[in-house]
Amino acid sequence: MRLKNVPYAKEKINNSIYVIKNPESFYGRFHSLFGNDKPIHLEIGTGKGDFIIGMALKHPNINFIGIEKYDSVLVRAIEKLEELNISNLLFIRMDALNIENIFHKEIDTLYLNFSDPWPKNRHTNRRLTSPLFLTRYENIFQNKCHVIQKTDNQDLFVFSLLSFNNMGYRFKALTFDLHNSQYVKDNIQTEYETKFVSKGMPIYYVDCEK
Amino acid sequence: MRLKNVPYAKEKINNSIYVIKNPESFYGRFHSLFGNDKPIHLEIGTGKGDFIIGMALKHPNINFIGIEKYDSVLVRAIEKLEELNISNLLFIRMDALNIENIFHKEIDTLYLNFSDPWPKNRHTNRRLTSPLFLTRYENIFQNKCHVIQKTDNQDLFVFSLLSFNNMGYRFKALTFDLHNSQYVKDNIQTEYETKFVSKGMPIYYVDCEK
Repeated sequence: MRLKNVPYAKEKINNSIYVIKNPESFYGRFHSLFGNDKPIHLEIGTGKGDFIIGMALKHPNINFIGIEKYDSVLVRAIEKLEELNISNLLFIRMDALNIENIFHKEIDTLYLNFSDPWPKNRHTNRRLTSPLFLTRYENIFQNKCHVIQKTDNQDLFVFSLLSFNNMGYRFKALTFDLHNSQYVKDNIQTEYETKFVSKGMPIYYVDCEK
Repeated sequence: MRLKNVPYAKEKINNSIYVIKNPESFYGRFHSLFGNDKPIHLEIGTGKGDFIIGMALKHPNINFIGIEKYDSVLVRAIEKLEELNISNLLFIRMDALNIENIFHKEIDTLYLNFSDPWPKNRHTNRRLTSPLFLTRYENIFQNKCHVIQKTDNQDLFVFSLLSFNNMGYRFKALTFDLHNSQYVKDNIQTEYETKFVSKGMPIYYVDCEK
């Protein structure tokens, strides 16, 4: 991702009511932040927020949390959210590496959208669908582990299918061309996706659980 | 497949020493036909035999059986085999529908190459990787179920991955572009594959077991 420096980003994030500060203090009790027991869906790598804001608007009976490690894009997501009047979406500025120390048996669904493919072999463990990451996710889920991935990157997708399959996930939905599939009707696009689709690139999609 | 009528095909097949007649009489004891205990690999839909003949030549320590339901292509495979001097390849003229009545705990690896995609939903069960067919295969294997599929058909491949995954198969190798992957070095091409590759079409490949 090409990152622009946004000078006021850190201050804005620190002051936003839409950003969860000290998220580790809510370990196991994130539902209390929303004041209800509706399912919580999580996106790792929220970017500028198009996907998760669209999802939150479309699904008022689901709570959403978007995590993002870069201030300069997260601040754009916050700005978009401030213009809306919705109470089912919050953000965390954090690195997904720490995810197992933040969430505990409270997530229903995890979205991995256009994650960094980390193409070099020595960076395999940094891919968000590596067996190492899938292991980190196991205790964040309330019931079944449920992961939905979208990517334009074929190598990452093949790696992910191997990884999900080898870790015991069952594929519920699979397509190599989301926008020409039955699954597109419920799809909310990310910023990247809008760009890729306009170029006619296929989007890979898998919905799986264990 | 476009089939030409070959008038002498039936007679040639009936008289060939490379064709197993009354295969059901060898149920559970196909090793005796080869006179050794080397592993038996099976191809369903052998066509004109390029793949299985190439495999038999390359792997003298493996026995191969190719099954094919159409006389007019099987006869071409027999003609090719007659020009060689190898004892580790035999054919059966049969429909794969009957497979569980022919083989019993004696197959090591099953190859499904460029199988008919049967694109209509009402023909799902005719696809050779349908859960129904995977269930039929279960008792043909000596140890683990081990299936290797190649296809140019994306819809069939997506269907197959769902099917293998949902039936508990573990992916050992997976690529969406066999001829630009690490797996191509051991690859033997089928007649179809040679044609597709010359047109630059990607070949999907999965090697899986349970």
